[in-house]
Amino acid sequence: VSALVTLTTDFGVADPYVAEMKGVLLREGPPDLRLIDLSHELAPFDIAAAALFVRAAVPRFPPGTVHLVVVDPGVGSARQAIIARVGEQLLVGPDNRVFGYLFDGSEEVFVIAPEPAPRSVSSTFHGRDIFAPAAARLAAGRPPEQLGRRAESHQHMVFPLVEFAGDTLAGRVIHIDRFGNLITNIAHGVLSDFLGSLDPSRVQFSLGERSVRGLVDHYAQGKPGELVALIGSSGLLELAVREGNAALKFGIELGKHVRVQRGS
Amino acid sequence: VSALVTLTTDFGVADPYVAEMKGVLLREGPPDLRLIDLSHELAPFDIAAAALFVRAAVPRFPPGTVHLVVVDPGVGSARQAIIARVGEQLLVGPDNRVFGYLFDGSEEVFVIAPEPAPRSVSSTFHGRDIFAPAAARLAAGRPPEQLGRRAESHQHMVFPLVEFAGDTLAGRVIHIDRFGNLITNIAHGVLSDFLGSLDPSRVQFSLGERSVRGLVDHYAQGKPGELVALIGSSGLLELAVREGNAALKFGIELGKHVRVQRGS
Amino acid sequence: VSALVTLTTDFGVADPYVAEMKGVLLREGPPDLRLIDLSHELAPFDIAAAALFVRAAVPRFPPGTVHLVVVDPGVGSARQAIIARVGEQLLVGPDNRVFGYLFDGSEEVFVIAPEPAPRSVSSTFHGRDIFAPAAARLAAGRPPEQLGRRAESHQHMVFPLVEFAGDTLAGRVIHIDRFGNLITNIAHGVLSDFLGSLDPSRVQFSLGERSVRGLVDHYAQGKPGELVALIGSSGLLELAVREGNAALKFGIELGKHVRVQRGS
Repeated sequence: VSALVTLTTDFGVADPYVAEMKGVLLREGPPDLRLIDLSHELAPFDIAAAALFVRAAVPRFPPGTVHLVVVDPGVGSARQAIIARVGEQLLVGPDNRVFGYLFDGSEEVFVIAPEPAPRSVSSTFHGRDIFAPAAARLAAGRPPEQLGRRAESHQHMVFPLVEFAGDTLAGRVIHIDRFGNLITNIAHGVLSDFLGSLDPSRVQFSLGERSVRGLVDHYAQGKPGELVALIGSSGLLELAVREGNAALKFGIELGKHVRVQRGS
Repeated sequence: VSALVTLTTDFGVADPYVAEMKGVLLREGPPDLRLIDLSHELAPFDIAAAALFVRAAVPRFPPGTVHLVVVDPGVGSARQAIIARVGEQLLVGPDNRVFGYLFDGSEEVFVIAPEPAPRSVSSTFHGRDIFAPAAARLAAGRPPEQLGRRAESHQHMVFPLVEFAGDTLAGRVIHIDRFGNLITNIAHGVLSDFLGSLDPSRVQFSLGERSVRGLVDHYAQGKPGELVALIGSSGLLELAVREGNAALKFGIELGKHVRVQRGS
Repeated sequence: VSALVTLTTDFGVADPYVAEMKGVLLREGPPDLRLIDLSHELAPFDIAAAALFVRAAVPRFPPGTVHLVVVDPGVGSARQAIIARVGEQLLVGPDNRVFGYLFDGSEEVFVIAPEPAPRSVSSTFHGRDIFAPAAARLAAGRPPEQLGRRAESHQHMVFPLVEFAGDTLAGRVIHIDRFGNLITNIAHGVLSDFLGSLDPSRVQFSLGERSVRGLVDHYAQGKPGELVALIGSSGLLELAVREGNAALKFGIELGKHVRVQRGS
């Protein structure tokens, strides 16, 4: 089976940066390497959004897939360049929390060593000159242990904490998708624990002055134009509008508070 | 030869949805599966535009290609999830007219059955949880007959009708492309029948108060800034401006009437 | 090893044009052909930007890669359709300077011949009907010599000239990237020659009324919000702002003059 490398960046494709990385991967990687674009349209320098993206996408891939992720506001600064092994996935990129949600204590993290033969490393484009060559070597079957030394520490990422107060659970909007759906930091498990055996129809979900009772199973269950609450495809509480854009309709921005209230 | 799956969605790539689908396809599909992105930038929920896209692209591919198309405003509602065999192509997606232009009576359509082993199907993301697994199985060589039951009915799509009145043929703009070219519902064959043996230079094409005589062979034949009429690459009458954007220049929107007048 | 064809266009992917080209490549190319998207988001009709993109990306790829580039304002006009061999790379596209930076005198250029069997060639879509079939045949191993006749002449591209006057070197901004970095026509070698043995900290880089002393190694070395000068990843002088957008911050447009002054 030919090796797989996925690419995730905030570079866009109007500039040649992604193309240069692909050239390096194909030139230095194994024959028949398959490149899989995940995204080059992440918001520039937005590590929080990149980390959510990586959290949802990476675990879906076949064992042994190499994931090259370059969202790197600190390129050229002191942040480490790392390879991580998490479960059956291999990750390559800057140590700046983009992989942080995937780190559960079982991860093994390595600081990428400069290649034995000195190379001319551009100071501005580590994606092409450090990360892509490392990904190519992983794809060729070299183990992370051969490509660097174990990191002494590395960066983690956690959801902003939710708050409990009596019968209220408070979280916030941490992502707004293309369809205007409002994704919160309230995970399915947290919500279940909070609700216990309560009938979901007796729960109220509020967003500012708007609120709705009960959870639906899917977007299409709502009435056109009305707010609905559901557990989204990433296992997080979402607020949405059927065939509408909840963010635009209600003027919601990232960070907006969301409340869940146990009914009476 | 390794299997091919194409992907066409209105998801964009700033969110992880397409990436998750690719992970599922590669994990559940045959080894060495090749994924081919067609577009993830279709206008959200715009089935008419998606159907035109699919009509132009699908027939170009090699026999046995699997085309996964997810533009699905009704996700989670009662619309069917289908597999269709049309000529040598295999189609997977919602039964909401996105494949409708390809259906000529020879198609075979199947309703995707839930997998024998119960799976946890997200109610909100059929692209990842229903369509991608079905496409992976088709790519692995399983015939549609094994993946579902024959559909009792399914959705078709037709061009908005053109109107004839004496020496006038009236149609409308059904697509505006990135270059501002105005693509109409007047097919090459319909225009030929209407013109008969008439010299094309004696035909007038009108768009509101603007008009032009005769058909050109290619955009570069026009004078800069002037309207030209031609048969575009999809076999439909187009109105365009040389190296210019006809839609912006003349303020044209979708649905605008176009008239063809047999000359005197 | 399976063949590689890269794709670079200004078509976007909301229209089916790129998808149609991919279908043709996969149908007419060798089994197991690998398609690699470089960009479909080049600015429409912007040959200067496309040429810079091609200059940076093409040389990175493995020997024998076929690069299909379609940015073609003159489609259907008299411009030639060419195949070029430059070093180990094969290029296919219009002869309109998009490959011009790669031509160093060693290139071999061929005018694509119509196929022996007459084909119906759309006058408007040479990308699909001329360039993609030619790229497919190259990928299948047919040499350029078999696909056309040697061109009598072809188009070159050069950087706009820099100007020297005493202790001043004057260039201009020729590209602004997604991050707002200002890329100039002052190549690394030209700057080195101009500076000679001068300590770089005694050189001043100016952009209108703003200026900065010295070169940094990477973006992260600057103070947030301040202008820095550096040699970018393509070997050209760049002016940038750390974690900021220099173009937006200073209101800079393409063509803006940049001055380098030997210090005193």
